[in-house]
Amino acid sequence: MGSRTPGHPEYRLTTGVETTTGPLGQGVANSVGMAMASKWLAERFNRPGFGLFDYNVYAIAGDGCMMEGISGEAASLAGHLKLGNLCWIYDSNKITIEGKTDLAFSEDVGKRFEAYGWNVVHVEDANNLGQIEEALQAFQQTKDRPTLIIVPSHIGWGAPHKQDTHGAHGEPLGEEEIKLTKRGYGWPEEAKFLVPDGVRELFQKGLGERGRALRDAWQSQFAKYKSEHPQLAAEIEQMQRRELPAGWNKDLPAFPADPKGKATRDTSGVVLNAIAKNVPWLIGGAADLAPSTKTKLTFDGAGAFQAASYGGRNLHFGVREHAMGAIVNGLAVSKLRAYGSTFLVFSDYMRNTLRLASIMEIPSIFIYTHDSIGVGEDGPTHQPIEHLPSLRAIPGLITLRPGDANEVLEAWKFIMPLKHEPVALILTRQALPTLDRTKYASAEGLHRGAYVLADAPGGKPDVLLLATGSEVSLAVTAYDKLASEGIHARVVSVPSWEIFEHYCAKHLEYREQVLPSAVTARVAIEMASTFGWERYVGAGGTTIGMHSFGASAPLPELQKKFGFTADAIVAAAKAQRARVAGK
Amino acid sequence: MGSRTPGHPEYRLTTGVETTTGPLGQGVANSVGMAMASKWLAERFNRPGFGLFDYNVYAIAGDGCMMEGISGEAASLAGHLKLGNLCWIYDSNKITIEGKTDLAFSEDVGKRFEAYGWNVVHVEDANNLGQIEEALQAFQQTKDRPTLIIVPSHIGWGAPHKQDTHGAHGEPLGEEEIKLTKRGYGWPEEAKFLVPDGVRELFQKGLGERGRALRDAWQSQFAKYKSEHPQLAAEIEQMQRRELPAGWNKDLPAFPADPKGKATRDTSGVVLNAIAKNVPWLIGGAADLAPSTKTKLTFDGAGAFQAASYGGRNLHFGVREHAMGAIVNGLAVSKLRAYGSTFLVFSDYMRNTLRLASIMEIPSIFIYTHDSIGVGEDGPTHQPIEHLPSLRAIPGLITLRPGDANEVLEAWKFIMPLKHEPVALILTRQALPTLDRTKYASAEGLHRGAYVLADAPGGKPDVLLLATGSEVSLAVTAYDKLASEGIHARVVSVPSWEIFEHYCAKHLEYREQVLPSAVTARVAIEMASTFGWERYVGAGGTTIGMHSFGASAPLPELQKKFGFTADAIVAAAKAQRARVAGK
Repeated sequence: MGSRTPGHPEYRLTTGVETTTGPLGQGVANSVGMAMASKWLAERFNRPGFGLFDYNVYAIAGDGCMMEGISGEAASLAGHLKLGNLCWIYDSNKITIEGKTDLAFSEDVGKRFEAYGWNVVHVEDANNLGQIEEALQAFQQTKDRPTLIIVPSHIGWGAPHKQDTHGAHGEPLGEEEIKLTKRGYGWPEEAKFLVPDGVRELFQKGLGERGRALRDAWQSQFAKYKSEHPQLAAEIEQMQRRELPAGWNKDLPAFPADPKGKATRDTSGVVLNAIAKNVPWLIGGAADLAPSTKTKLTFDGAGAFQAASYGGRNLHFGVREHAMGAIVNGLAVSKLRAYGSTFLVFSDYMRNTLRLASIMEIPSIFIYTHDSIGVGEDGPTHQPIEHLPSLRAIPGLITLRPGDANEVLEAWKFIMPLKHEPVALILTRQALPTLDRTKYASAEGLHRGAYVLADAPGGKPDVLLLATGSEVSLAVTAYDKLASEGIHARVVSVPSWEIFEHYCAKHLEYREQVLPSAVTARVAIEMASTFGWERYVGAGGTTIGMHSFGASAPLPELQKKFGFTADAIVAAAKAQRARVAGK
Repeated sequence: MGSRTPGHPEYRLTTGVETTTGPLGQGVANSVGMAMASKWLAERFNRPGFGLFDYNVYAIAGDGCMMEGISGEAASLAGHLKLGNLCWIYDSNKITIEGKTDLAFSEDVGKRFEAYGWNVVHVEDANNLGQIEEALQAFQQTKDRPTLIIVPSHIGWGAPHKQDTHGAHGEPLGEEEIKLTKRGYGWPEEAKFLVPDGVRELFQKGLGERGRALRDAWQSQFAKYKSEHPQLAAEIEQMQRRELPAGWNKDLPAFPADPKGKATRDTSGVVLNAIAKNVPWLIGGAADLAPSTKTKLTFDGAGAFQAASYGGRNLHFGVREHAMGAIVNGLAVSKLRAYGSTFLVFSDYMRNTLRLASIMEIPSIFIYTHDSIGVGEDGPTHQPIEHLPSLRAIPGLITLRPGDANEVLEAWKFIMPLKHEPVALILTRQALPTLDRTKYASAEGLHRGAYVLADAPGGKPDVLLLATGSEVSLAVTAYDKLASEGIHARVVSVPSWEIFEHYCAKHLEYREQVLPSAVTARVAIEMASTFGWERYVGAGGTTIGMHSFGASAPLPELQKKFGFTADAIVAAAKAQRARVAGK
């Protein structure tokens, strides 16, 4: 407990660990984001005489990494982008947990990487240090594509009974085998954690001195750069501290009331562009869905990140959601402000990357559009149902589902200053009314996670209507209908459970203000699985949500079929009132 | 709404649709399972003179499928298994949603598949029918490996303004463009859904007659087979109806009380083997974790499914979770009873396949071990937290987390007869006590999803303790401690929320029997995210669960750190009693 060398490497815990890996394939996919960051930083900041950013990125991979789909996705993109600064060292020991890799893995990995456009270098044996050095030099001399160095090795090298067996993978060798191995090495058999005299000094004179000299040189170069290019140097320092440049929000739009409105994916695209114009290191893209997710940066000079234009800010990930998530994380640990986008249903393909962003506490931005049965004719395979609760269940991830254009604006204002929290921003495909904020409460309530949007007379509601995203305006319509029948409802917009919980933890009275415990007549409305809503509606409340998968049909028909109508909300509210009155 | 030709193909809805695809890469990965099923069925059932099972499997893929990691995983395994009955036809139109594929995809796909060990055949153009026929013949003549036919094509062929653009992908061409296209084809411009005379007859004489003749021939062959091999024929019929053979449960073990007990992954392995011995078409394996997930079939003749032994029943998926899920689904639609296993945390890598099994209503079995911070030293990247609620949120998927050996036994008794429900079986790494069922209620209560395991005197509890899996025995310990202090608790074991909800929907009084609404002092205990537990503990209840990621340390230290101790449960129960008394 509390060790600096835990079971798997953990970012932020141990100096020198640059990303949290562990789940196979994540680390190599991160490395593609890191190599992209190096290229991007060089394009933006290097100047004649100042090669501030020219670092190479090395990743060590095993047989398991090579079998995972995510590594193939990432390698294909790295080849496309001709990332000459990227080197994967493939420790091919031919052993995995079930036994020899020939149980399940007989492909020609080198040839596959050549097909991706990589430079592939073969070493004969992991103990041939000369060949390894040559291979690394071959990488450093290859500027036009990434390099894979294939290094056949022996797991448990020198352990007389465990070498080349899966017994050397996940469990200790055992006292006796360790002794025998040490004997084979000519090492003192009884010594534990032995660091012979001279080793520390050797490291200090090698890595230590070399590192210090390089760091000092870089720092003095940077000091000079700072005097010649103060603006760029300031940007570098802001990035490193995850700060925003002054004026980052100066072009933010305002959204007047509009009964027809726009899809939140559209308003998000507008806001994203307004911010990105003033935050040069905000870059990102989509897994081949930018025209649908509206994440393209369209202002002059935004450009595309390609092999011939590493300074571009629109990333084309291809149809590779899993790699996209890991690459966004790789960019984020490199201190760029990065986003990736796809349809909400495909968050399934990249879930582990959301989890790792949350564990690492890095501010990766994941934009998920087409957020409900609102997808319509594409049908159940493309209509997310369980995804909202599934994302809300991830510790540390902030899930945000704004309900109209102004909540989208506030969502981005909330997201941009974050330094340690990843976000899933959930957006609609279909148009939503832009609420009249002179009539209803300000969208700034989003910063409290949930807020009273439309209240009952005197702030004394008979029934609470809780809604998120596309269902907020539906709840408002129901609220008006209820009011016309003399029923006093309150609409609570709940764009983010996590922000609400976090805010309530600091402002203990706020929960009671928004959700008075005396008002147990409650209806939540969300076009997603109802899973979890009991937290806010209580045991007796009702949630109008999805209890099955969706269907392929135009949205208005689906809304009727699945009960997402103002009339259904009115009926549920009345039933709740009756239930409470009957008590 | 209700169309037979919805936005994406849906299994069980439209005749001839053999699997639900849609999310890219799923269909091609399913096809590997289907081809494996064909090989397995041939090995088991074909006899001299009876080539009952010799079908080939064709899948059509696009550029997007080729970019997804899952297709690479599946293709690598198909190559390893030398599936000569599998043919992928790659419609390479070089257009995806963002535009031309050269935005993100410039690898040599053919060479990559050669590296996987596939036969790769190039056609010059999709309109060269002669070449396509030759390519299909080349596939049929290649018996020792799968075949990829690469077919360059033009999306929106003949549409004068949309051909070769992404405008022809996801939206209608538009009235005017359709007219112009028809004009180019020499087709009546105004006609819609026109099927000229003779087409129906041509199809009837072609596909229709050929299909009928083949079906009749197969049926008469099968009638003859039935008389010569009645036992095997009966098996085939049982498989087709998803029935179990008589005596499938005759070797089930019993588990006597044992304070030390065994890990549920171990008892599951014992039960699985006892069943599989008597259900020949129960086959499966792990994503390179069988020694850890304990899913290996170890009885004589079980064998491994390999290129030289297609009758084997242990599948080695390699480190390819996503493909594993899709292959299990492909086996399941082929009417085999298939399972796949990995650690619970890696269910993230294969989530969409669980969703598709649920949409298709097929009884795929997913076995997830190492189900909590019980993983210990492997640390937070390997300790599932949000996974239980995330699985519970998927409509139609049954999540089962048995609490001791006898609940594992009952879980398998519940799972095996299922015909339409996929299951996620959640198991521990660590040993759990086998409860004394002469003292506590029978584990058969599992078939009701939740049941009273240990009750208060007279069935009048002051406080309810709800627990699942590894926390059940902890709740029992707390129950004993509370009893010694004169506090009347009830322990409710909740192995499956879905089964409980389903059972309660049919037995309306059962919920009240198990969770009396008058008893609002409630404590739930689960080593997972608390997300969703308000459903059963109510607004005032407490859930002892995880509110963060785990940590790398031995389990006993983690249990203490995160509050999973009998003392913590006792304290929470007392606080609940005090809360209710204070009202």
